[in-house]
Amino acid sequence: MSTTIKDIAKELNISIATVSKALNDSYDISDKTKDKVRKTAKKMNYKPNAIAQGLVTNKTNTIGLIIPDITNPFYPEIARGVEEKLNEHGYNVFLCNSNWEVKREKKYIDLLISKQVDGIILAHSGMKSWSLENIDIPIVSVATKSGYKEENFVVIDDKKGGYLATKHLLENAYKKIMFIGGQNSIETNRMRLEGYKLALTEEGIELDETLIKNGDFTRESGYTLIKNSLKKGIIPTGVFAGTDMLALGVMQAVREYGLNIPEDIGVIGFDDISFAQLPEISLTTIAQPKYNMGVIAAKTILDKINNKEVDNTVLNPELILRKTTRKI
Amino acid sequence: MSTTIKDIAKELNISIATVSKALNDSYDISDKTKDKVRKTAKKMNYKPNAIAQGLVTNKTNTIGLIIPDITNPFYPEIARGVEEKLNEHGYNVFLCNSNWEVKREKKYIDLLISKQVDGIILAHSGMKSWSLENIDIPIVSVATKSGYKEENFVVIDDKKGGYLATKHLLENAYKKIMFIGGQNSIETNRMRLEGYKLALTEEGIELDETLIKNGDFTRESGYTLIKNSLKKGIIPTGVFAGTDMLALGVMQAVREYGLNIPEDIGVIGFDDISFAQLPEISLTTIAQPKYNMGVIAAKTILDKINNKEVDNTVLNPELILRKTTRKI
Repeated sequence: MSTTIKDIAKELNISIATVSKALNDSYDISDKTKDKVRKTAKKMNYKPNAIAQGLVTNKTNTIGLIIPDITNPFYPEIARGVEEKLNEHGYNVFLCNSNWEVKREKKYIDLLISKQVDGIILAHSGMKSWSLENIDIPIVSVATKSGYKEENFVVIDDKKGGYLATKHLLENAYKKIMFIGGQNSIETNRMRLEGYKLALTEEGIELDETLIKNGDFTRESGYTLIKNSLKKGIIPTGVFAGTDMLALGVMQAVREYGLNIPEDIGVIGFDDISFAQLPEISLTTIAQPKYNMGVIAAKTILDKINNKEVDNTVLNPELILRKTTRKI
Repeated sequence: MSTTIKDIAKELNISIATVSKALNDSYDISDKTKDKVRKTAKKMNYKPNAIAQGLVTNKTNTIGLIIPDITNPFYPEIARGVEEKLNEHGYNVFLCNSNWEVKREKKYIDLLISKQVDGIILAHSGMKSWSLENIDIPIVSVATKSGYKEENFVVIDDKKGGYLATKHLLENAYKKIMFIGGQNSIETNRMRLEGYKLALTEEGIELDETLIKNGDFTRESGYTLIKNSLKKGIIPTGVFAGTDMLALGVMQAVREYGLNIPEDIGVIGFDDISFAQLPEISLTTIAQPKYNMGVIAAKTILDKINNKEVDNTVLNPELILRKTTRKI
């Protein structure tokens, strides 16, 4: 086995990117580091040309994209962005659906690696039972962080999104606000809930745990969670649903219960899936730039593959006013 | 290289399945064929056990699924069915999105084969510019036939679906019916249009080509096609939209024009995507058993991989009455 820049990086306990840049005489690496890298490379009998050749031929121009729920239009819109950008660069995409199952997610990662993809873009199913630490391939998180401290990610500011949603309800005289969320093991859900709590606290409203409901991110879950509350006589004036899919279920249950939206109950979602824009639905929501998240995730994985420096991206959520909340 | 059953099949110009069955003394192979196969196997120095072992280890337990539009919820629902069934059998799925582009579809087929998937399930993007004839891997068409005469497929009776949709409009006093379809290069679209024509002809209504509009299968296309017609003063009393996505666009344009659904114009879709069921949308449509189509396609590809006899499946479309058409 010939020496690779990875071996040199390991030997010196520095990043692969730094080694690559040092060998390429990059301006943003100190002379001291360059000197150290060159000496080590010589000592380890590193052959730059052979390896460069090796790196080129090792590429398969294929990227794996793992999403947790293909039936929630949020993820297909990210996938479109990923694909368009990667296709531009001559890459193809294998999409895998983890179905929110950690076990299946891990299996797909192993499978993609065995198929020699050049990198993986991952929309996590959760973060409790595993880490990305030992995965030996470029990987970028999209939509949700994994919680692994050295990861690269493209996300939105979910806490801010939750805050904006709740504040919008409060400013328009919806004071008893229910949070209908997804799996609480998921970072995005927890952050949106944090934003909800922050907005209430700022307004001097005491937290009422009976108004916080977590299930999963499906329409069915939104329907069931609010329906059970209404049955028990817990009737909010506003609902912040953690996703648009949840919001669609909430809207159905509220209307079946005989209450009007936005007069009796205001409903705000999260994501801005294309179906939220239908005039018949017209859901007030917090937009995530889904397609663009996919594009940026694609750029980020390409940069990682090419050993470039990579920035993490935190995009801004945006309040979209439609007809499921009143504006006073 | 040792001899495989494929070599024997090629030598005798018969199918691999026949060779396999002959060597396994299957009841549905003639003695004459069995004799011929055994003699050839002996002559070619065929070693059954070694090969059986080889067949086992050659399997990757991975299937490719190619769909044309990940953002139309029709396909993710098929994908769910494919996945659930294949996972049950220990298989994983790589999903590829062809974006209705024949070139991309072909590229993905080559790529999946190079990644040694055991088979491919294909929802075609069209059928004009290529054939499955030379693809040397088990392949099953789902949702749309490719037109290749020896293909295996799982589809619905699209002509019957188009007939049921149009007949429902006619029976409920919508007489001037517009067809809003997708790409006419696609078999399903042509068959739905055939059904439309049949229903009109049965009713003694002369075909009016100005009422037949084809674009693509998106909501935007449905919106634009009907809007342009209305502007020109071509105002139907009923619309049969070739997909629910098209129907959603039609509904928006009709309402923006100031006409009421179902009073002024009745609208019927095709597919029964989950969003058609939302109470706010409540779209009358022709249901395809999407999830089940995926399940059956999965079973079919597994049977092909295991050299079992395979039946093609033509499922029944079903009329689902909701609120975008009146019932008299």
